[in-house]
Amino acid sequence: MLDFNFVNPTHILFGKGKIAEIKERIPAASRVLITYGRGSVKKNGTLDEVLVALSDHTVFEFGGIEPNPSYETLMQAVDMIQTNSIDFLLAVGGGSVIDGTKFIAAAAVFEGDPWDILEKHGEGVLKALPFGSVLTLPATGSEMNSGGVVTRISLQAKLVFMSPYVFPLFSVLDPEKTYTLPSRQIGNGVVDAFAHVVEQYVTYPVNGKVQDRFAEGLLLTLIEEGPKALANPKDYEVRSNLMWTATMALNGLIGAGVPQDWTTHMIGHELTAMHGLDHAQTLAVILPNLLTVCKQNKREKLLQYAERVWDLKEGESDQRIGTAIDKTRNFFEQMQVKTHLSDYGIGKDSIPRLLEQLQAHGLNSLGEQQDVTPDVSKRILERCL
Amino acid sequence: MLDFNFVNPTHILFGKGKIAEIKERIPAASRVLITYGRGSVKKNGTLDEVLVALSDHTVFEFGGIEPNPSYETLMQAVDMIQTNSIDFLLAVGGGSVIDGTKFIAAAAVFEGDPWDILEKHGEGVLKALPFGSVLTLPATGSEMNSGGVVTRISLQAKLVFMSPYVFPLFSVLDPEKTYTLPSRQIGNGVVDAFAHVVEQYVTYPVNGKVQDRFAEGLLLTLIEEGPKALANPKDYEVRSNLMWTATMALNGLIGAGVPQDWTTHMIGHELTAMHGLDHAQTLAVILPNLLTVCKQNKREKLLQYAERVWDLKEGESDQRIGTAIDKTRNFFEQMQVKTHLSDYGIGKDSIPRLLEQLQAHGLNSLGEQQDVTPDVSKRILERCL
Repeated sequence: MLDFNFVNPTHILFGKGKIAEIKERIPAASRVLITYGRGSVKKNGTLDEVLVALSDHTVFEFGGIEPNPSYETLMQAVDMIQTNSIDFLLAVGGGSVIDGTKFIAAAAVFEGDPWDILEKHGEGVLKALPFGSVLTLPATGSEMNSGGVVTRISLQAKLVFMSPYVFPLFSVLDPEKTYTLPSRQIGNGVVDAFAHVVEQYVTYPVNGKVQDRFAEGLLLTLIEEGPKALANPKDYEVRSNLMWTATMALNGLIGAGVPQDWTTHMIGHELTAMHGLDHAQTLAVILPNLLTVCKQNKREKLLQYAERVWDLKEGESDQRIGTAIDKTRNFFEQMQVKTHLSDYGIGKDSIPRLLEQLQAHGLNSLGEQQDVTPDVSKRILERCL
Repeated sequence: MLDFNFVNPTHILFGKGKIAEIKERIPAASRVLITYGRGSVKKNGTLDEVLVALSDHTVFEFGGIEPNPSYETLMQAVDMIQTNSIDFLLAVGGGSVIDGTKFIAAAAVFEGDPWDILEKHGEGVLKALPFGSVLTLPATGSEMNSGGVVTRISLQAKLVFMSPYVFPLFSVLDPEKTYTLPSRQIGNGVVDAFAHVVEQYVTYPVNGKVQDRFAEGLLLTLIEEGPKALANPKDYEVRSNLMWTATMALNGLIGAGVPQDWTTHMIGHELTAMHGLDHAQTLAVILPNLLTVCKQNKREKLLQYAERVWDLKEGESDQRIGTAIDKTRNFFEQMQVKTHLSDYGIGKDSIPRLLEQLQAHGLNSLGEQQDVTPDVSKRILERCL
């Protein structure tokens, strides 16, 4: 096991009706900005439930945060905070709304140009407004971690930032709030959580037995519950397991003390920034090909993945690895997320520009061994067609 | 899955040499009381390493905290805090030292009679002195939870208290610091962690898939690593896995959203208070018999335990359950912890008094369904002989 420091101070409120508890978690005198996306929380009643819980608080609303939240939009919220002396934020939505709210929380009290927060990946963040979240989409883990991803549309750049100051103080996870999600978002969420686990698990072995078994437990749960979530949208138990799995997939725990990859996410961010694919679509396309191209480096963990997650115990090693990767791709397709660039109308001619963008963002040595060079990224992308 | 609230703010510093980091975690102006046990940390150099790390701090020492820390001893530390205006505590030791330090931290600033803290199981605790820990014995999980157990010798009472104010701010987990532990403490630690997991896992099913798989991962790791830790005391990887497993076994995570039993611990506390057995010895004696006596209530989870932890997939259900319980008992014996009361010189004549003490402490309806009455406890104890 590698050395590590780990802490996660977010308070999770899990279950039916837990939104009612937020009134005790936000100081009574706060001026609260509720942030949300394009209005689904208005239609399905979640926002009303939040407003009832906060009926004794002073609240403001900021809607319109996009999937892949943009710097341009988020800076409007920062202006609103300053105009209205807002001192607490509450994100109501999925990972994009929560990621965006993290940026708003940091940018509102940042000394200097807020763009620096993203350019320096959160390094200069020394404080942030306090905030909580009400999660409506199990996927990104943002509800219990200290990272976010923000896009600057004008630069076609999608950048990650992390800071210990942007852990949510609390997050409400009510599985019923996911009943009205379209199947596309359920499929995307399962693929996203699956990729998060694989990025922290299929690397090289360091004998982190707890981390490995926790990772395998999360993958097995996604494989069992994902298809049920598509088939039976109002199954509370399925949605509960999915929600807790997605949170545990990226809250720092399974990644503590083990190597981490993140190549799939980094290449995926460029695909989204250039071509507008959903985040999970990029992961479904790239991850199986990353595993194939990097299978020598990842050999031991791929064999463990094949055995413990896909129950592949017989046959030649290479064959087991190949079958495990095929099953991964098939699972993404089963979750109704397409796994080839051609499915999204993207051809070979896009690859040079994608590689340029990776290099422009300094991503020349990706992966757990920093040996995914632009040439390796090119080979991965060529297999994605 | 059941509804739950979960938070764990303790910062874990895991790895070789991490003691050096504590100087940045304790405010420079603090007056620090270092608490420890009967001196092994003096002999093996751990205390010296702590003193070097805190060479710029004002430090005091309080040694002599016993295994099963006593109210009587701990109250001496409370006096010392008040005399010396101490404002930060650092526990250096195993679960007893950390449990004791939690009580000291709460008692030092408690308004009223500190005995109330234990009698009311922590309910009235509204604040505590800040404290950290340097863990030397993987076992109890106290380094990352908010509970403690304290004995009042004069009353033969061993009582649990819990409070969100007594989470350690940080805990150092350096696997090398466990190399000099006697095998009795390693065996005890593995049994303790194993029992912690089973108390939160072998109950009745609520379809908590993540919690179940995490629990199974911890049990499998203990079964694999426990015997190696006895055989090769200086195997860093083995000690790392054991240390992280014991911490994860009782930090609130695997118990969030699932039923919990704790009968074995409650009966065990009476055994320790009356007869002085090591805590883990009591668990090794009681747990297999609790599982046998309560096997109807626990049937589904016992079958899952048999299959996933002990790989028992063939044969009649009752036979698989019986074999799983036998394997549990054999594992404790393999860890060199005896599993019968007679091994400790305790006979049938002790049972009436043990049952009286359970009732005196209000423990008349134990277990995940509150149906472990004194009569059921009697049947369990009779099987323990």
